[in-house]
Amino acid sequence: MEIGSLALKLHREHRGKIALKSKVPINDAKDLSIYYTPGVAEPCKEIAKNEELVYEYTAKSNWVAVVTNGTAVLGLGDIGAHASLPVMEGKAVLFKEFGGVDAFPICINSKDVEEIVRVIKLIQPSFGGINLEDIAAPFCFEIEERLIDELEIPVFHDDQHGTAVVALAALINSLKLVNKKISDVRIVINGAGAAGIAVAQLLIKYGAKDIIICDKCGAIYEGREEDMNKYKQQIAKVTNKNHLKGSIHDVIKGADVFIGLSVANVLDEEDVKNMAKDAIVMAMANPVPEIMPGKAKRAGAKIICTGRSDFSNQVNNVLAFPGIFRGALDVRARKITDEMKVAAAEAIARIAEEDLNEDYVIPKALNKRVSFEVALAVAEKAIEQGIARINLSKQELQRKILLALNCPG
Amino acid sequence: MEIGSLALKLHREHRGKIALKSKVPINDAKDLSIYYTPGVAEPCKEIAKNEELVYEYTAKSNWVAVVTNGTAVLGLGDIGAHASLPVMEGKAVLFKEFGGVDAFPICINSKDVEEIVRVIKLIQPSFGGINLEDIAAPFCFEIEERLIDELEIPVFHDDQHGTAVVALAALINSLKLVNKKISDVRIVINGAGAAGIAVAQLLIKYGAKDIIICDKCGAIYEGREEDMNKYKQQIAKVTNKNHLKGSIHDVIKGADVFIGLSVANVLDEEDVKNMAKDAIVMAMANPVPEIMPGKAKRAGAKIICTGRSDFSNQVNNVLAFPGIFRGALDVRARKITDEMKVAAAEAIARIAEEDLNEDYVIPKALNKRVSFEVALAVAEKAIEQGIARINLSKQELQRKILLALNCPG
Repeated sequence: MEIGSLALKLHREHRGKIALKSKVPINDAKDLSIYYTPGVAEPCKEIAKNEELVYEYTAKSNWVAVVTNGTAVLGLGDIGAHASLPVMEGKAVLFKEFGGVDAFPICINSKDVEEIVRVIKLIQPSFGGINLEDIAAPFCFEIEERLIDELEIPVFHDDQHGTAVVALAALINSLKLVNKKISDVRIVINGAGAAGIAVAQLLIKYGAKDIIICDKCGAIYEGREEDMNKYKQQIAKVTNKNHLKGSIHDVIKGADVFIGLSVANVLDEEDVKNMAKDAIVMAMANPVPEIMPGKAKRAGAKIICTGRSDFSNQVNNVLAFPGIFRGALDVRARKITDEMKVAAAEAIARIAEEDLNEDYVIPKALNKRVSFEVALAVAEKAIEQGIARINLSKQELQRKILLALNCPG
Repeated sequence: MEIGSLALKLHREHRGKIALKSKVPINDAKDLSIYYTPGVAEPCKEIAKNEELVYEYTAKSNWVAVVTNGTAVLGLGDIGAHASLPVMEGKAVLFKEFGGVDAFPICINSKDVEEIVRVIKLIQPSFGGINLEDIAAPFCFEIEERLIDELEIPVFHDDQHGTAVVALAALINSLKLVNKKISDVRIVINGAGAAGIAVAQLLIKYGAKDIIICDKCGAIYEGREEDMNKYKQQIAKVTNKNHLKGSIHDVIKGADVFIGLSVANVLDEEDVKNMAKDAIVMAMANPVPEIMPGKAKRAGAKIICTGRSDFSNQVNNVLAFPGIFRGALDVRARKITDEMKVAAAEAIARIAEEDLNEDYVIPKALNKRVSFEVALAVAEKAIEQGIARINLSKQELQRKILLALNCPG
C-alpha cells in the first residue's frame, strides 16, 4: 500500500494518535483521597501561596502546547484549524517519542494576531512551554515576538527556529568538509517566509557575513519596494550589502552555499554549475526539493542536503525541537535564546562529526542520542546565560535529562 | 502519614498526575512517514474537504477539555488558575480511569465571561467535549449557557449537573425505601450556588413539585430583594410556591428531604427532629457535612447521604461525569440534555437497586460498572432525542462503549 493510503487507513484505525496517560494509580478509596478530594486540596493551597510551586506539584513543567491556526500547514497552505490537527498530533507524538515531552495540540480557530496572542496568554497556566507551528508568515513573527515578550515560559516557533538550528548544524559540518569558514562564504537563501528569515538570522548570529535572500520577486535588498513587509525590511538591512538585484538564477552565481526553503525545482543544473567550487546545496523544499540530489551532484555540488528521508543528509526538525524543549523545561528557562539555538546546532553537528563525510553531515532523524546532547547543551547555555530558574551541575542535568528521556511517563 | 501530607509528597514525586501517551509506534523511517510527513498530509486534506472527518482521523472524538478559571475550587474558593491545576489534573485522571475519556486541563487566567467563552470557542477544534469545572456562580451559568448555544460539541458544568445527576440517583432510591413519591415530598435545598440551583432544576424535571431553596439569607422566594441574581430569580419562579420566608431552621420543619450543598454544620439535631417522618438527609458539604451522619441518625433521619467516602451513601460525581461524556462522545451528541441527565441518574439508581437498603442507596464510587451503564443510557437517550450524530444499535453501542472503557488508550 502506498504511504498516503496507509496513512489514511492507520489514522482512522487508531482514531488519531494521542491519548492521556494517568501517572498515578486509582485502585481504591485511599488513592482517590490522595489524588483527588480531599488530599488534592493540599497542593492547591501550596500553589495558591506560592505560584512557582505549580512546577513541583503538577505536570505543567513537562507539558508543551503545540499551537497553530492552520494557516501554513506542511505544503498545504491555509487548510484551517481542524484540518491541521493530524499534523499537530504527529508533532505531539514526536515530542513524546524523542524528547519525553508531553505535548498537546491547541488548534485555534482564528487569523487575528491579537486574538491568538490573547488565547495563548490566557491558557498559559496549563503549560510549561509553547511551540508555535504552521502559522503563516508574517503573522507568525508578530505572534512569536509578542508571546516572548509577554509570557514567562519559553516560546518557540519550530518552522522558524527548528529549521534554522538543523540547517546551521548541517552547514557547520558541510563547511568543515569543504574547508571553508562561515565568515568567508557567500550564502544564497531562497524563500523569505518563516524559515528563510529565521535561517538567515541564525547564520548571521553564527558569523555569516554575506547572505542574499530571494523571494519570488528575486533578491531582497534594502529599499526594494515590491512585495515587502516589516520582516523582509529588517532582514534586508543585514543581508545583501551590495544591493544585488535579480532572480535567484542571477544571484546564485558564485555562491558557496544555497539554502532552499521554497518550492520544488526552482534550480536547474546550470544554476549549480554557476556556483563556486565545492558548492553546498541544501534543497529543503518538501516533498520535492528545489533540485533533485542526483541532478545537483551531476552539476558539481559537493554536498547536498534535502528534507527527505530517502536521500542522505536529511535536514529534519525532529533533530532539534524535542531536545531544545527538553533542555529548556529541565532548567525552567524563561525563553529560548539565539545562543541556546546555536548550542543546539553545535551539539547536533558534533554527533555527525564523528563519521563526517559528504553523505553524512547530519545525524539520522531517528538517532535518539541527539535529543539528549541537544537538551544538555541547551540547558547548560540557559544556566550560563542566567535565564534558567533551576541551576544544576552538569552531572545533575545529565541525570535529569536521561530520566525524562527514558521514563517519558 | 496523614492524607494531606501524603498528597503533597506524592504529587511532588510524580510531578503531577498526567502525561501524554502516543497511540502509534515510531520505530523507523516508515512509521515517521505514515504518522508524520509526508503521509500525515492525507488525513489533513480529507478533513479540509469535509470537516466532520476530523472525528475519524484524529483523537478529537475522545478528548475533553476540563476548563476552569480557578474561582470556586473545592471548598477553597477563588485560588486562581494555577492553583486549580492539581484538581483539574485529578479530574482528568478520573475521566480516563472511569470513562476511558482523554481529558486535558485548560486553566484560563481570566474572570471575564466574554473572554472565557471566546477562548473556549477558539480552541474548540482540539476537543470533542467541554467539561466546565470550579467556576464561581453566577458566572458559571452564563458561561455554560453561552457555550451550549454557540458550540457544536457537548458542554457540561460538572459542579452543576454532575452533582444534580448523582443527587437525583440517590433520591430516587431513597424515596423507594421510604415509600414516598417525588411528586408528593417537600424538598429543602440549602445552597443556591451552581450545585443547588442545578439540583433543583433537575428534580423539577423529574417531577418534584415542592422545593424550597435557601441561601445564607434564608428561603428564596419570588420577589425577594436581598442578595438575588438572575438565576435565583428564575428558580424562585418555580420553587417555594407559598412564598415561605425565614431561615433554613424555619423552612426545614415538616420537610421530607434535605439536600445540603452548602457549608459544615448548618443543621443541628433539632432541625432533623422537625422534619417529617422517614426523613432523608443528604448532607453533601465537603469535607464536613451540614450535619454528621451519627447526629442525624440519632435525631431520627431514616436515610443519610454525604459527600464522604468514609460514610455510607457517598454522593460522588465520579459516578456520573465519566459515563455521561463516554455516552455523549460515542454517539457524537451535540449537547447533553436534561433527558440524558435523567437517564444517567436512573441508570445509577438501578445499579444500587439490586441491594437497596438504608446504607446503600447509591453505588460505590469505585464501581466501574456504573460508567458503562450510564454511558449506555445517555447514548441511547441522545439517539432517541435525535441529537446524536452517530446512530448505533444497542448492541453496537455496548460494544463501542466497552471497547472505550476497557482499552482506554
